[in-house]
Amino acid sequence: MTAVAHVVTVGAAPGAAVADPEGAAVAAALVEAGVPVTSRVVLDEDEAALERALTPDDGLTVVIAGGGSAGDVVRRVLARAVGARLVLSERFLAALEERYRRLDRPVPRRAERLALLPQGAVTWPVGDGEPGWSLERGARAFAVLARDAGLPAALAEHLVPFARARFARHGVVLVRTLRAAGVALGEVEERLAEWLGAADRKGTDVAVVPGDGEVWVRLRARGATMAEASSALSRVESPVLKALGDDCYGRDAESLELVVGRLLLERRLTLAVAESCTGGLLGHRLTNVPGSSAYFERGVLVYSNRAKEQLLGVPAEILRVHGAVSAPCAEAMARGICERAGTPCGLAITGVAGPDGGTAAKPVGTVFVALAVASEVTSRRFRFLGDRASVKWQSTQAAFDMLRRALKGRT
Amino acid sequence: MTAVAHVVTVGAAPGAAVADPEGAAVAAALVEAGVPVTSRVVLDEDEAALERALTPDDGLTVVIAGGGSAGDVVRRVLARAVGARLVLSERFLAALEERYRRLDRPVPRRAERLALLPQGAVTWPVGDGEPGWSLERGARAFAVLARDAGLPAALAEHLVPFARARFARHGVVLVRTLRAAGVALGEVEERLAEWLGAADRKGTDVAVVPGDGEVWVRLRARGATMAEASSALSRVESPVLKALGDDCYGRDAESLELVVGRLLLERRLTLAVAESCTGGLLGHRLTNVPGSSAYFERGVLVYSNRAKEQLLGVPAEILRVHGAVSAPCAEAMARGICERAGTPCGLAITGVAGPDGGTAAKPVGTVFVALAVASEVTSRRFRFLGDRASVKWQSTQAAFDMLRRALKGRT
Repeated sequence: MTAVAHVVTVGAAPGAAVADPEGAAVAAALVEAGVPVTSRVVLDEDEAALERALTPDDGLTVVIAGGGSAGDVVRRVLARAVGARLVLSERFLAALEERYRRLDRPVPRRAERLALLPQGAVTWPVGDGEPGWSLERGARAFAVLARDAGLPAALAEHLVPFARARFARHGVVLVRTLRAAGVALGEVEERLAEWLGAADRKGTDVAVVPGDGEVWVRLRARGATMAEASSALSRVESPVLKALGDDCYGRDAESLELVVGRLLLERRLTLAVAESCTGGLLGHRLTNVPGSSAYFERGVLVYSNRAKEQLLGVPAEILRVHGAVSAPCAEAMARGICERAGTPCGLAITGVAGPDGGTAAKPVGTVFVALAVASEVTSRRFRFLGDRASVKWQSTQAAFDMLRRALKGRT
Repeated sequence: MTAVAHVVTVGAAPGAAVADPEGAAVAAALVEAGVPVTSRVVLDEDEAALERALTPDDGLTVVIAGGGSAGDVVRRVLARAVGARLVLSERFLAALEERYRRLDRPVPRRAERLALLPQGAVTWPVGDGEPGWSLERGARAFAVLARDAGLPAALAEHLVPFARARFARHGVVLVRTLRAAGVALGEVEERLAEWLGAADRKGTDVAVVPGDGEVWVRLRARGATMAEASSALSRVESPVLKALGDDCYGRDAESLELVVGRLLLERRLTLAVAESCTGGLLGHRLTNVPGSSAYFERGVLVYSNRAKEQLLGVPAEILRVHGAVSAPCAEAMARGICERAGTPCGLAITGVAGPDGGTAAKPVGTVFVALAVASEVTSRRFRFLGDRASVKWQSTQAAFDMLRRALKGRT
């Protein structure tokens, strides 16, 4: 059996309506390093649940522990799992004290409790956060990272090298995600039919899964070495990429906003946006990309009609005759933001995100997206299903994809 | 042993850097209904991993299945788990056909495959998506929901009533999250010391866990009936609320933006925002709240200095002398957005989100937030730790909390 890794987040409230970005980041980093991650778990601070979540086989379990009492639960359960006593780790305590010194804060009273680790644990000091630690017992390995500002450093400096070293002898599994936008899942399935579900004995497999407002094609390739796995991956990736054509915009962690930003940079173009129903999500996604200030000039969130007139010069006549949710309004918004910002590219979104505001002619989920590139303005009407958050998200996906396809056509 | 529920999302790529909003929403709805959720799992389309994730005891496992091949995996594994054959469910097929009729799309070829369910499964038709289904065998129960636009309806119409009915005989566990902002985790722990970790025999417990840029106090209360659990919860909630004072802004699913919106509505005030380093996140969060158009007038994303001057009238002198990341700039932005939008309230954010752009005097994470309420402008300087996404998030938390505290002081 090939060893696998599991990522477990403890103390992140499985019942709270909040996702687990830390667990997702850790899992992504492991996959990137060729370590297959088969599950990601969010647990209450519950000893029994954590015990059940620890890998029974020869795998690596990465535990992300929230502050408060979650760390205590993790220390106790892992000590029991490997049959070790909890002892004071001087190195952990020193790393912890060093951290508080750097933050210029007093060492908290609970520091000595935090430094009680299972015998044999290795301390992983990190710059900005609580130290992590690892523990190996036979074929099983555990790594514990604190859910705080030090997580990115703990990942890069300790976890990834540790996991790479441990997994080298099990062979390598590479996973690649090809990301497609502006195309339906069923269409991708039909286009890739010859690769899907086919029992493949060459160490590769292909699956189509729904992404977030897009479609992901997941390729997996195994090999005894990194070179072998890489070449198996290439063999399946090339024909799949060809079948996807322009619908594939990027791979793995490449988001639509990242790819659009890169296209703008390469063409030395700048962008401004005008958002109504998305309320800032388009700008937020654009500015999630480091360095986006090189091409993102400005945005306006024109929630009221007054703002649409004042900030974009949308004619009152258009608002009166066609309404704010209309192709003429979207196009006037795109034209207006380009003129005022002095940018060659502009995106505008106006629609009904719901749950209220729908009509028979324009039901909830009706969204108009307009794109301006060098004074040429086009618009499209969409009808998205889902709740408010989903309609907002899909609207920005559509907008980015329109811009992406237009930019790809220009050299 | 009290029965518990687990939420498992299949086919959502544990190794992709994407969270699991569907799993979070399902878990939150169960907790709300008094059903304790102890874990949430994201799995690859892997039969072995799913088998391991199914609850061994007398619990309820809710499986959220992505499209594509994830559904096949789920059907096969659940049939095996209860020792049932897969048979064509006429009711499921009819519900599926009805759905495509309503969407005015042809029934896909794979419809008959999708309708192969373990014998004894009960179909749960939903409006907008693929139907769900449930399966009971002795003390174990399974519910399968499709990860699509029908999920909210499947939750409300089928899963919650089903879970409530099943769990009634096990007694009720109520979980409440009290949400606090603008206060450190350690301070909350010290303030609540007498309730924390105390072995409590009255059926309640209290824990402090880190939220996302805030602090959560989790209360749990058990009882044979809903009335008993409710009264146990009240007994612990009242003194904890008193100890938290104004730092507690809401509970359970109440977000800061929801609470701020409610305060604005009650006081009939409107708000406009000016964002630099958060790039739209503040507006995005505000407009995630249905009905926010009643108080959110507009926003501007002034990423460039030119936009700060043109859209907000920030004096060139301030930008030259103090720089864009400064208290005078933040205050000029807040003043500017209120004047131009004609709103009594304004929020402005400017800072260094990183990873680049930091200096010795203003390192990455330095953020200035300015608040204007009826022409009175105040500002605060923050230093946030973490990556770009985290700095953006914490900046919006700080901005909302400043507005919240100012509004609470006004009646």
